[in-house]
Amino acid sequence: MTVAVKALFFDVFGTLTDFRASIAREAEALLKPLGYALDWPAFADAWRGEYQGALEEVRSGRMAYCKLDVLHRRNLEITLKRFDAGALGEEQLRELNLAWHRLDAWPDVPPGLARLKRKYLLSPLSNGNISLMVDIARRNNFPWDAILGADIAHDFKPKPRVYLAAVEALDLAPHDCMLVAAHSSDLKAAACLGLRTAHIARPNEHGPGKGEAAPTVPVDFAAKSLEELADTLGA
Amino acid sequence: MTVAVKALFFDVFGTLTDFRASIAREAEALLKPLGYALDWPAFADAWRGEYQGALEEVRSGRMAYCKLDVLHRRNLEITLKRFDAGALGEEQLRELNLAWHRLDAWPDVPPGLARLKRKYLLSPLSNGNISLMVDIARRNNFPWDAILGADIAHDFKPKPRVYLAAVEALDLAPHDCMLVAAHSSDLKAAACLGLRTAHIARPNEHGPGKGEAAPTVPVDFAAKSLEELADTLGA
Repeated sequence: MTVAVKALFFDVFGTLTDFRASIAREAEALLKPLGYALDWPAFADAWRGEYQGALEEVRSGRMAYCKLDVLHRRNLEITLKRFDAGALGEEQLRELNLAWHRLDAWPDVPPGLARLKRKYLLSPLSNGNISLMVDIARRNNFPWDAILGADIAHDFKPKPRVYLAAVEALDLAPHDCMLVAAHSSDLKAAACLGLRTAHIARPNEHGPGKGEAAPTVPVDFAAKSLEELADTLGA
Repeated sequence: MTVAVKALFFDVFGTLTDFRASIAREAEALLKPLGYALDWPAFADAWRGEYQGALEEVRSGRMAYCKLDVLHRRNLEITLKRFDAGALGEEQLRELNLAWHRLDAWPDVPPGLARLKRKYLLSPLSNGNISLMVDIARRNNFPWDAILGADIAHDFKPKPRVYLAAVEALDLAPHDCMLVAAHSSDLKAAACLGLRTAHIARPNEHGPGKGEAAPTVPVDFAAKSLEELADTLGA
């Protein structure tokens, strides 16, 4: 099938990367040698659980835009206290916070992106900051054409400015662009602005059976993996 | 030699690409079939000759930031009039203006960048807008980790903000970054902010013998090509 879009934009946390397993692994690697014995997946869930609340501080205008790394650090300290692990030093906190820079991709993602790159411009459209996106891309061989998203828009999804800044950066119209995401709320916001949309099923994003197996909003395409999306798009 | 920098930033017009020959070729390809017989390299020189004056309108604060594509278009219309070629239609003007998106790299650049990519984060640090950088990269296989530069800083080199925005986007200190450029003025501005610097000789940038064969300011490294720079940096 030929789809007349020129650029594909990707959500990264959850859609391209398994942040839950990666953060659990990184937390265990750093904290276990210090004598902590936490429920590591629960720790990852709790840290991520602070995410939307922190973003909302910026989206609402109560807080000026700052990099997601800064919000992750704030959320990390809140989460560590809740797990009675609040005694880390600055260097340890800094290193643990960078766990988000060491996320692993779902297995279908590198081969899927390599195929999609042949036909489309590719960019993340994430709330993560540029350095975070760069480090994840280096680790997983994501062949981005540019790093767009929150850090060039100075606001966070699903605020319209973030999607439109990406569209404008490539001199395209919204209907020339497609958002690829595992989250219906993200796809709904993009579709409202005129972007095309593709849902990727990530049924285990938040643990076994805890993720979107299918979109809950109308989308242009729905696939089980990036490789299936590449099949659908003839890439 | 091991150089303790983490990222290399690159000037693009002149340093990585032969804009003079590329623009002359593109102008001839579009205008000759319309009956124009210009001195094509002189046309390229004249178009580029309007460049710094237009940037200065923004750098001085007299004009709000806009993409370089917009300034190129303004400069194109000025230049066409000067060459008595002012009768083009909108579609032809648009297409000719995109000549800057179709610049060819100097021959040493793709192999040099491929080697440097193994050891360093790589990004353009150009006054060109993101879409312009993306199109040049696609055409020439530039393996960028991100597209930094004027379009994320909303100002033009050599204003300090442009260099510092690139440094900050990667969460680095200025001394962790090196600007690679064929222009001493650019390198001087970067060095003043604490970046390391490497000069690449482009003695024919503006025509035979019209370019910097060597830097006129102190630099950390000077090389004849990106491949020689890769040799020097052990990449």
